Amino acid sequence: MTKLSWGRNGEMLATLTSILEWLGVVVFAITGALVASRKEMDIFGFILLGVVTGIGGGTLRDLLLGLTPVFWIREPVYLIVCVAAAAAVFFLAHLAHSRHRVLLWLDAAGLALFAAVGAEIALRAEASPIVAVAMGVITATFGGIVRDILGAEIPVVLAREIYVTAALIGSLAFVGLIGLGMPREGALAVAFGLAFAIRGAALLWSWSLPRYRPRAGGD
Amino acid sequence: MTKLSWGRNGEMLATLTSILEWLGVVVFAITGALVASRKEMDIFGFILLGVVTGIGGGTLRDLLLGLTPVFWIREPVYLIVCVAAAAAVFFLAHLAHSRHRVLLWLDAAGLALFAAVGAEIALRAEASPIVAVAMGVITATFGGIVRDILGAEIPVVLAREIYVTAALIGSLAFVGLIGLGMPREGALAVAFGLAFAIRGAALLWSWSLPRYRPRAGGD
Amino acid sequence: MTKLSWGRNGEMLATLTSILEWLGVVVFAITGALVASRKEMDIFGFILLGVVTGIGGGTLRDLLLGLTPVFWIREPVYLIVCVAAAAAVFFLAHLAHSRHRVLLWLDAAGLALFAAVGAEIALRAEASPIVAVAMGVITATFGGIVRDILGAEIPVVLAREIYVTAALIGSLAFVGLIGLGMPREGALAVAFGLAFAIRGAALLWSWSLPRYRPRAGGD
Repeated sequence: MTKLSWGRNGEMLATLTSILEWLGVVVFAITGALVASRKEMDIFGFILLGVVTGIGGGTLRDLLLGLTPVFWIREPVYLIVCVAAAAAVFFLAHLAHSRHRVLLWLDAAGLALFAAVGAEIALRAEASPIVAVAMGVITATFGGIVRDILGAEIPVVLAREIYVTAALIGSLAFVGLIGLGMPREGALAVAFGLAFAIRGAALLWSWSLPRYRPRAGGD
Repeated sequence: MTKLSWGRNGEMLATLTSILEWLGVVVFAITGALVASRKEMDIFGFILLGVVTGIGGGTLRDLLLGLTPVFWIREPVYLIVCVAAAAAVFFLAHLAHSRHRVLLWLDAAGLALFAAVGAEIALRAEASPIVAVAMGVITATFGGIVRDILGAEIPVVLAREIYVTAALIGSLAFVGLIGLGMPREGALAVAFGLAFAIRGAALLWSWSLPRYRPRAGGD
Repeated sequence: MTKLSWGRNGEMLATLTSILEWLGVVVFAITGALVASRKEMDIFGFILLGVVTGIGGGTLRDLLLGLTPVFWIREPVYLIVCVAAAAAVFFLAHLAHSRHRVLLWLDAAGLALFAAVGAEIALRAEASPIVAVAMGVITATFGGIVRDILGAEIPVVLAREIYVTAALIGSLAFVGLIGLGMPREGALAVAFGLAFAIRGAALLWSWSLPRYRPRAGGD
């Protein structure tokens, strides 16, 4: 297992990263369970989708970086929390006015959290800056991709509104600010805020980037 | 590579676990080939789906636990057996009265075998009990999920009948019985029998758990 | 990390393998971006699909062999090249007379390159011959499978024309020729040429193998 290196204040930073990772895992687990509710699954379907979505991104990140056994094997309480969150959704989802709307906003929060946390963990594992950016994007998007494939939904990553872009900007901001010497706590906060603001704006006002337009004759 | 720890009688237990893992790999390889037959693929399509389904669950389990190179790289004879089973199905599948029925029952056997074996291997790799339960479920369901995605079938994991639940109960039973001090051979047998009985009953009598029902106003 | 072993002329061979791997990554990245163009995605959708397709096969190969961190974390310039290739396609794809035709031929080139390179890297990591063959096929096909799933296209691996077969023959040829004592440079060239010729012929003349035909009564 690659050894994670911590700077000064390592203890406190580990705590902050942990808190953000926890938040990300929980909100993604809830989105997984919400997809299960849209497919009218039973409670174990909720739990499966909740667990896979909550820990999917971080799992792929750890596998790629060689940080095995992966994080939730080292700290199984992540699993328990995903199970609890998914089960809670089974009983409480009907309280939401629009489950689809809740799903999209929680997904946005998870995307922004993991874009920052994923990049941070990659930097600590001594990955290069560009790899850290990629790892932020992967951590942020992979759980949702698997959720949508297993739930037979159209992957949100293919959505017309800005999605991957928000994760990329969050990761880039984190890595850039660290490179400029900002303390990690601040960089995490800015990166999260930026990614969430961009994805949120895209949801509210249907922001999108110019799309590829085929010209005559292509296919 | 994480070192696997064996108790007393380790040699014999390794043999039993091996036999059950072999059976699981073979029956899942056959189900992969049967999906290929439903899609009218050529023989190498059969082999690809057979191999992926047979070794998929155990591969993900080994990756997550950090047991690399994964089991079929350490013991390539697993690959050979998957290839042989898939090729045999290409020539013999027409003998089955109902290929779909055979597929579902072999899938049930594989599910039950891997729920027990996956949990056992995780415990030996010194994972915590809850991780061992999760690993049983993952090993039991992942091969079939990939099979159904590659074969463009509706994933059986989304089936209305009890599916994930059967794997979960099998894994829980195994880990619980070990915790209560039962010898591993017995726990493996009970866990397999329980999971297979539940999934089989679900197939025979369309057992299902209560599903999430949307209320007015949700979406 | 498993240590890769090189024979005599290791330096030169590493260079040749590297060149072929580079070519494979670039042509697959372009195919990913072409799928993005067919889905009319924005530029970051192009980049996501380009990166995933370009590095997907080699990533799975490295994970299975335990060669972590995976190759593009060790050498991030692979990522940069995928990003550049995908971005270039966003602006230049309309120049292609038929994007679908270009996609299929580049995919064929990538398939043939990775069938040889994947087997070569597995042999160097001291995998057994049959594992090396499997690793060639996995490296050659996995990027395209993920591309087609993420792009919601029918996976080319399910195509009626010979596909997996071409990768398998290329990998088999490489491993067989090495076994017969041919220098690796020659074996790489023959394996690439063979796989590309077979897949190319299949595209040109719709070559296919006999398919499974259901008989009366089956399903």
